[in-house]
Amino acid sequence: MSPRIVALGGGHGLYATLSAARRLTPHVTAIVTVADDGGSSGRLRSELDVVPPGDLRMALAALASDTPHGRLWATILQHRFGGNGALAGHPIGNLILAGLNEVLADPVAALDEVGRVLGIHGRVLPMCPMGLGIEADVAGLESDPRMSRVIRGQVAIATTVGKVRRVRLMPVDPPATRQAVDAIMAADLVVLGPGSWFTSVIPHVLVPQLAAALQATAARRALVVNLVAEPGETAEFSAERHIHVLSQHAPGFTVHEVIVDASRVPTEREREQLRRTAKILDAQVEFADVSRPGTPLHDPARLAAALEGVRLRGAAPPASPTPTVPTPTANGPRGDDSWR
Amino acid sequence: MSPRIVALGGGHGLYATLSAARRLTPHVTAIVTVADDGGSSGRLRSELDVVPPGDLRMALAALASDTPHGRLWATILQHRFGGNGALAGHPIGNLILAGLNEVLADPVAALDEVGRVLGIHGRVLPMCPMGLGIEADVAGLESDPRMSRVIRGQVAIATTVGKVRRVRLMPVDPPATRQAVDAIMAADLVVLGPGSWFTSVIPHVLVPQLAAALQATAARRALVVNLVAEPGETAEFSAERHIHVLSQHAPGFTVHEVIVDASRVPTEREREQLRRTAKILDAQVEFADVSRPGTPLHDPARLAAALEGVRLRGAAPPASPTPTVPTPTANGPRGDDSWR
Repeated sequence: MSPRIVALGGGHGLYATLSAARRLTPHVTAIVTVADDGGSSGRLRSELDVVPPGDLRMALAALASDTPHGRLWATILQHRFGGNGALAGHPIGNLILAGLNEVLADPVAALDEVGRVLGIHGRVLPMCPMGLGIEADVAGLESDPRMSRVIRGQVAIATTVGKVRRVRLMPVDPPATRQAVDAIMAADLVVLGPGSWFTSVIPHVLVPQLAAALQATAARRALVVNLVAEPGETAEFSAERHIHVLSQHAPGFTVHEVIVDASRVPTEREREQLRRTAKILDAQVEFADVSRPGTPLHDPARLAAALEGVRLRGAAPPASPTPTVPTPTANGPRGDDSWR
Repeated sequence: MSPRIVALGGGHGLYATLSAARRLTPHVTAIVTVADDGGSSGRLRSELDVVPPGDLRMALAALASDTPHGRLWATILQHRFGGNGALAGHPIGNLILAGLNEVLADPVAALDEVGRVLGIHGRVLPMCPMGLGIEADVAGLESDPRMSRVIRGQVAIATTVGKVRRVRLMPVDPPATRQAVDAIMAADLVVLGPGSWFTSVIPHVLVPQLAAALQATAARRALVVNLVAEPGETAEFSAERHIHVLSQHAPGFTVHEVIVDASRVPTEREREQLRRTAKILDAQVEFADVSRPGTPLHDPARLAAALEGVRLRGAAPPASPTPTVPTPTANGPRGDDSWR
């Protein structure tokens, strides 16, 4: 029985998680942020009424089947038009997704159809069936350092020279994609992060139905902390600070384990401090070698091993009389598998 | 044994032939003009170095498999982006073909790949592996009616208020797509037309290697004359005039049969005159009911029946001691089936 893994995030961080998860199982579901307003996605949003396709396209490419056709279509999806004209810079996959969205009037159906062409195992879903906005309270932009200013838009937030204090989605309480909720409920392992912390990771816990499903699911839950602080939104952030700001945005949110690259926290003193911080999330900390040596990138095989560890540590021992997995709340979404 | 049918043309005329041919056999090859410079194709040509995709896309849609996926992708290919932005009006299929062309750097490979997604039986090929230009000598634009002026571009020629005398491709003697030559040589039936006469039909006989293959093939050859004269390039053209101008552009070009809609030539006197004209092409005339009553459109089932008639009239009788099909010339392209 292959496990069911759900990975939540966006952009390159999610690509890394998916590249790891697909090594463990064919049953991978990506749940993707939809607040991007930059680059090709931003141009398409301003022109057409579409869920921003960029991060969705990346996730599809990450799960493309390892066959000649799968690899070819992953290359096609990711290829950006050349030239200097109206199409220049648009990845072909963004245009295909935008077009299918127009034809089918259903972003999930559009993603399923492109997934079929790519021969993906698993599924790519938007966290919300519509494009969202994002805004942030940012300090350090005024002469008075206690004052904060509201900055709007994913690109503006990700690149601000100020300090991001808090982000909000616009609208504030968007509906989750139904199939995303179902996938979380049916999962064996749910992974949040890594990725742009304020604009790709935290948005998931700001969608009420996703946050509820993340707490209600019987799945093991892992948080993967970024390897390095990103210039802009998380400049100079420690692993602890990543955990703190996540918790501030989602009081009561918990995971079983926080995966931290061992080389980033070399001393026992630092590790002990991080273990204390992780208690806010009710989490154990797993210090693992998950980076590709000499790079700021997660290594798919190593991250896969760490994720498999999280899952296996949650498996009830064969002879255990009392299963340790929590039961979904009665009024929460059901893990009835209807999303498959 | 299903016959192999090759249809040459462009635009809506070719769509009609393909819709008919697919009723007869799964082995249909479309050979498509590549001189379009209008609409989405024109915009893409001016922006990227691509074979104009519009007519190729139409042919792919015409051959899409009759399955839910085939029909869906035909709809997707043909769907034009809405809005008022940079993408507005582009059919999705044109962008997919243009993108695949950039990735694969081979228009035939790009068409084969989209054909695979559509589940088409058969193949769609450009007549030439590069985009072509077209120019025409057009009379009636000067005060002196004997003077003609050179008009450049498919759109300009198709919509001229003058009288088109002669068209030329630019470059004048372009190479044919190798697989198109192979398909003609391996065919049982080759069909030229209907379609925009000067800009979609005649261009095929102006490509030297295609013209040579059309004469060298052992296939039965049919010319399908347009049902109605088109405003612009063939305003007020009779069926005879269609045959005359084709012959003027390709001296020595012959077909076995010319298919003419019976209702267009109701009197025996007119039919006799048309039969005499068709001798320029060494052809018999088949007067058949091929139109959809009350429309200027070919009816796929009726056109299919007429095409099947052309093919069967060429089949050697079972006991015939001397096959009547000509042998390919020794130095012509071989019908070695390598195109499949």
